[in-house]
Amino acid sequence: MTDRAAVKAALKTQAVETPSWAYGNSGTRFKVFTQAGVPRDPWEKLQDAAKVHEFTGVAPTVALHIPWDRVDGHDGYAELAKYAEERGLRLGAINANTFQDDDYRLGSICHPDAAVRRKALDHLLECVDIMDATGSRDLKLWFADGTNYPGQDDIRERQDRLAEGLAEVYGRLGEGQRMLLEYKLFEPAFYTTDVPDWGTAYAHCLKLGPKARVVVDTGHHAPGTNIEFIVATLLREGRLGGFDFNSRFYADDDLMVGAADPFQLFRIMCEVVHGGGFTSEVAFMLDQCHNIEAKIPAIIRSVMNVQEATAKALSVDREALAEAQVCGDVLGANGVLMDAYGTDVRPVLREVREEMGLDPEPLAAYARSGWGRRIVAERVGGRQAGWGA
Amino acid sequence: MTDRAAVKAALKTQAVETPSWAYGNSGTRFKVFTQAGVPRDPWEKLQDAAKVHEFTGVAPTVALHIPWDRVDGHDGYAELAKYAEERGLRLGAINANTFQDDDYRLGSICHPDAAVRRKALDHLLECVDIMDATGSRDLKLWFADGTNYPGQDDIRERQDRLAEGLAEVYGRLGEGQRMLLEYKLFEPAFYTTDVPDWGTAYAHCLKLGPKARVVVDTGHHAPGTNIEFIVATLLREGRLGGFDFNSRFYADDDLMVGAADPFQLFRIMCEVVHGGGFTSEVAFMLDQCHNIEAKIPAIIRSVMNVQEATAKALSVDREALAEAQVCGDVLGANGVLMDAYGTDVRPVLREVREEMGLDPEPLAAYARSGWGRRIVAERVGGRQAGWGA
Amino acid sequence: MTDRAAVKAALKTQAVETPSWAYGNSGTRFKVFTQAGVPRDPWEKLQDAAKVHEFTGVAPTVALHIPWDRVDGHDGYAELAKYAEERGLRLGAINANTFQDDDYRLGSICHPDAAVRRKALDHLLECVDIMDATGSRDLKLWFADGTNYPGQDDIRERQDRLAEGLAEVYGRLGEGQRMLLEYKLFEPAFYTTDVPDWGTAYAHCLKLGPKARVVVDTGHHAPGTNIEFIVATLLREGRLGGFDFNSRFYADDDLMVGAADPFQLFRIMCEVVHGGGFTSEVAFMLDQCHNIEAKIPAIIRSVMNVQEATAKALSVDREALAEAQVCGDVLGANGVLMDAYGTDVRPVLREVREEMGLDPEPLAAYARSGWGRRIVAERVGGRQAGWGA
Amino acid sequence: MTDRAAVKAALKTQAVETPSWAYGNSGTRFKVFTQAGVPRDPWEKLQDAAKVHEFTGVAPTVALHIPWDRVDGHDGYAELAKYAEERGLRLGAINANTFQDDDYRLGSICHPDAAVRRKALDHLLECVDIMDATGSRDLKLWFADGTNYPGQDDIRERQDRLAEGLAEVYGRLGEGQRMLLEYKLFEPAFYTTDVPDWGTAYAHCLKLGPKARVVVDTGHHAPGTNIEFIVATLLREGRLGGFDFNSRFYADDDLMVGAADPFQLFRIMCEVVHGGGFTSEVAFMLDQCHNIEAKIPAIIRSVMNVQEATAKALSVDREALAEAQVCGDVLGANGVLMDAYGTDVRPVLREVREEMGLDPEPLAAYARSGWGRRIVAERVGGRQAGWGA
Repeated sequence: MTDRAAVKAALKTQAVETPSWAYGNSGTRFKVFTQAGVPRDPWEKLQDAAKVHEFTGVAPTVALHIPWDRVDGHDGYAELAKYAEERGLRLGAINANTFQDDDYRLGSICHPDAAVRRKALDHLLECVDIMDATGSRDLKLWFADGTNYPGQDDIRERQDRLAEGLAEVYGRLGEGQRMLLEYKLFEPAFYTTDVPDWGTAYAHCLKLGPKARVVVDTGHHAPGTNIEFIVATLLREGRLGGFDFNSRFYADDDLMVGAADPFQLFRIMCEVVHGGGFTSEVAFMLDQCHNIEAKIPAIIRSVMNVQEATAKALSVDREALAEAQVCGDVLGANGVLMDAYGTDVRPVLREVREEMGLDPEPLAAYARSGWGRRIVAERVGGRQAGWGA
Repeated sequence: MTDRAAVKAALKTQAVETPSWAYGNSGTRFKVFTQAGVPRDPWEKLQDAAKVHEFTGVAPTVALHIPWDRVDGHDGYAELAKYAEERGLRLGAINANTFQDDDYRLGSICHPDAAVRRKALDHLLECVDIMDATGSRDLKLWFADGTNYPGQDDIRERQDRLAEGLAEVYGRLGEGQRMLLEYKLFEPAFYTTDVPDWGTAYAHCLKLGPKARVVVDTGHHAPGTNIEFIVATLLREGRLGGFDFNSRFYADDDLMVGAADPFQLFRIMCEVVHGGGFTSEVAFMLDQCHNIEAKIPAIIRSVMNVQEATAKALSVDREALAEAQVCGDVLGANGVLMDAYGTDVRPVLREVREEMGLDPEPLAAYARSGWGRRIVAERVGGRQAGWGA
Repeated sequence: MTDRAAVKAALKTQAVETPSWAYGNSGTRFKVFTQAGVPRDPWEKLQDAAKVHEFTGVAPTVALHIPWDRVDGHDGYAELAKYAEERGLRLGAINANTFQDDDYRLGSICHPDAAVRRKALDHLLECVDIMDATGSRDLKLWFADGTNYPGQDDIRERQDRLAEGLAEVYGRLGEGQRMLLEYKLFEPAFYTTDVPDWGTAYAHCLKLGPKARVVVDTGHHAPGTNIEFIVATLLREGRLGGFDFNSRFYADDDLMVGAADPFQLFRIMCEVVHGGGFTSEVAFMLDQCHNIEAKIPAIIRSVMNVQEATAKALSVDREALAEAQVCGDVLGANGVLMDAYGTDVRPVLREVREEMGLDPEPLAAYARSGWGRRIVAERVGGRQAGWGA
Repeated sequence: MTDRAAVKAALKTQAVETPSWAYGNSGTRFKVFTQAGVPRDPWEKLQDAAKVHEFTGVAPTVALHIPWDRVDGHDGYAELAKYAEERGLRLGAINANTFQDDDYRLGSICHPDAAVRRKALDHLLECVDIMDATGSRDLKLWFADGTNYPGQDDIRERQDRLAEGLAEVYGRLGEGQRMLLEYKLFEPAFYTTDVPDWGTAYAHCLKLGPKARVVVDTGHHAPGTNIEFIVATLLREGRLGGFDFNSRFYADDDLMVGAADPFQLFRIMCEVVHGGGFTSEVAFMLDQCHNIEAKIPAIIRSVMNVQEATAKALSVDREALAEAQVCGDVLGANGVLMDAYGTDVRPVLREVREEMGLDPEPLAAYARSGWGRRIVAERVGGRQAGWGA
């Protein structure tokens, strides 16, 4: 698609979901640095998310994390959804949390003790209840389950427990609801992880049924893993549910997407576009930590990074590429791709924003808006939101 | 199984397949060092393999590699099989080679050009013909296919071509024959590899049918990959076809199995034993390079390393382990496993060998046999076997 | 040294330092699980450390971490030292902490702001004061300093600041005091780390002078790094100050030493023994997290793992090894090493313990002692110690 | 340097050295694919190198590899130098080869056998003789030395032999000649490598003297290594001798520089420019394999990739960057860097070329030149050059 108008039209349809927890404090095991103005509750997180959408135009949904965003009862969630709507937002994926209770020391739905598994499952079912209330489509499941030491638990039995638990939750999903199963190489488990790779997630999804899809978190792979290959494969199999975007130099660094390897992000988006994944069937979500940088600007920047990678991917001259590929013209084909990557797409994105009635420079516009200073001034007292809070 | 008699009985049933190519020269891209006495044809490779079996008692089969071990016609292979049989051996897996013709510069059954794909497929079908002649059960497929540069070829279309090619070969398999599909992270392709991980191999096997199984080459993973988890998972799915054993510190180093991380080999064998994989359904094959060390002793040593890991895995006190696991006794469970690992199993293996009528020290016995000196003296002239020869 | 008596004599001289923080709670960024009976202050940590020494006989010193183990004034530290001594212990390395204040968001002695650097330096100087009070020989410095994003700060200027800061602290060291400089590939910094590898630590130590030495934390390397090579090199250069022992499958997992790759630990100890490093000049310290397992038994186990690796390293038949090496007998030389590794050294260690007047089975003896139950009963109320507390 | 004229002036001074061996065939251990038109001797390699310089204007020197480029006697090299000069080229670094004789199976200057070490040293001294004849400044040393198995040889003694050998060669260097010492994580050695990291190379260079410098091959690091940090550090220490440019996704893939991670190449060039390394003191060399792609266009492309990264690095707004850094403005500082990276520098490079009297599109111009067809037609018969030939 080298037709500028078509590229721009596609870019206007883009939707990047931001995660409520990225607006709060986060950190490493060594230290969580606090920042002034950080939200103290889900409502304030939505306020910030609304700002990101206001200045980018392509961040219309917000993922919730339960219990971090728990509010009272069905009505509470309905009210939260309404609060979002009033700010031009919708509530997105519901993220379950089965890793922050002392009970989960040895796992959640893979735990050797049936009582702990039950507790975890009840929480997952509660999350589907919340989806009913919020109108969310996707239940996003990431399990911290695993073991730290060889022998600690039975790898295979843990898979049996996992399969059993997932089946129960899957059975609870309503019409139009989906289960997105995330995999991760390691951390917090340091020897085995119960869903360590896309193959494991895929195998479980296959058995569960068509509502189960795999989520690719770009930071959750072993060094050297070719992520775009996985994306292409999952799209080919009809099992790509979405992305958790972030970036990494080392492990699951959770840096801003596009910060560590923008060429990789471009290649991923190329497979998305080429494989028919640039639709609402695939959820494009951020899942990042902003440990030392200002949070709202970092999220705006991340959304823009996704936009730039998408714009470049949309600009690949697919005909020229296919022609070079079929001829076995290695350098020519690579050259076509690199031409798109080497292009400065910031001008076209500025046009897109202007045509959407937005400021062409979201970060500068946000800075001018005074929102950052206002929340520092207003959000005083109370307990700052953060991982686990 | 902490009953010494039972452990010994199990060890006597072990069978490790050695690869014909390990008896010939191999090397790195920088240099292939030649060794005196190296076989010059398949017959001499079988002579050497017979020695390995003679001194270990647990290496009864030899994998062939076509065309490196090509002989004339159906009769040639039957004769080769008879030659093996006369030396107490059987012919094992047939390994196809679709990477050493100039035609395969851009791939084989995934190549963009249908003519090259056809050539590769014809070779694979020839391999099944050879299986008919040799009585081999397993067709082992490793594809060097992939790309070196982003954009070079279409990831997804290559998967389509792969699926189509595999289906044709699968359809040709006879009763009792199997297809073992190997995956590899990278090399010789340096950007994408068409079967890069167990998930991809598994997905293709699923579609092909029950005769298709995944082969785990212990050197073909990204850094940090938990191989025993993959083994446990494939056994749980009924899709583990076998192993290509070797070891690595870095990439696909192809060192002697057990040389780099004997604890990992033990953990793998623990999953094999525990998951019901210690049967003839799973092929235990070596796939190694002996670039700088003497080849026959290195293969004997490798077989012994597999035996030691197996003996330890068989010796795990499974009841104590299960009890500790179910109680969540992390250190206790790990301790049970480590107890088995820390045990010196060389005495029990010496007993096993003596009870099998063998010398308890295979390497010393081989050295005393004079075979090494004899082949140096006799195998003069001709062209030494080696990768590609 | 294959003389059993000599091996045992050497093993009796072994000293493994345990870290005060390992007795407290630790965790990942996702969750710190609390354990009953965990110490609430430095005094209780010393009580636990005394138990480890009581049952192993080879853990006579305890590393402190400031401010986590801060007590009041010079007298407080002297009193702490006396408290240790009464329990058969000495205070070991003083570990500085320049990463848990909000001021350190962008670094400590490499921070762009001179005021923050001054604060960090003052803390380091305070640590030397504490060494004077405790009689500690070693100041151990690990800096969390680094950056998360390309461009965030000037790599080279940060090195200048680092050099300047280290020089000031080095100048403050008294007679017989040493600075141990630790390196780490990454975490908590995710783009650059200011002391990321042994080369950087070594280069700074060279400029500082003979009291500056490099500490090798076994978990702080990129995948595939050959740690024993670094150990051999630092010993050859006279710059190995000590070890922070732990183990890892992935990143800096901080599992029990010897748990992930006992063969690697053996190879490291082989270089230590062979390179003349098995003396008090090299500090053998544990630096681990016990996130899910019982802490005191985990530390006892870790000490035992170091003992086992040492016993095996001491048992290598050095003459046979040298002979095989000089002949270029690859398999023979490897075989000599593997013979020592394959040997079950638990019997000789049981003997060593009995000759030292200890129970031959430290873990069982500790379990029988009732200490674990006693601290659960007694250490009620107050705030449990842990990272950052 | 955001002044366009200054950027262009700097770009015109750029010099990228191409390696004679990149013009010949290369491959992996699995297969060397041959290409029509490949040079058959050093003279034809220089013809091709001249084409690269003709169309890029910034590739004025060619590295030789001995013995691959061996010609007869001192006069032969002088003639080769003259042949180069007539084509607008100069001969660059002399690369020694101590890895392709059977004698080098266990190493070269680190070999346990003094006779092999002597042979290797004599070759290195011959290389200095050749430098005298060619007028080359740099002796580039990469040693394949190492071991494949634990215990195989003594790590420390190998360092002693290395130090001794290097000292002899260093002593032979004439006025204005330098020794560039390369490090590599692994391959072809798979357990230890005798110069595995920059720290080891640096330590040796320090002891040798000021003419000894470290070469950074961008493909020779463990996964996750921050190469630009090493570059900044070596520049700070005055020990950066040069680069071997190439790129990698996995191990030492030796792909075209800039193909795998162009952002990393940019960051490296940023440190070069900022650290005062953009001078003739630092040798910018390509060291790549073109296994499947056309060789001359691939080299032209590689030179262009280095140019683009350099142009972006030169365009960083250093004042704005420093200001953001000193304020601790994480996002701002990162943004300044990303602005330069996001800029399309192809237009400015087209201008540079036009001002240098070149075609603005080197690849298209080369294609039009007919050189590729001509060499295919003319270079018939004889033995194609390649690794080892």
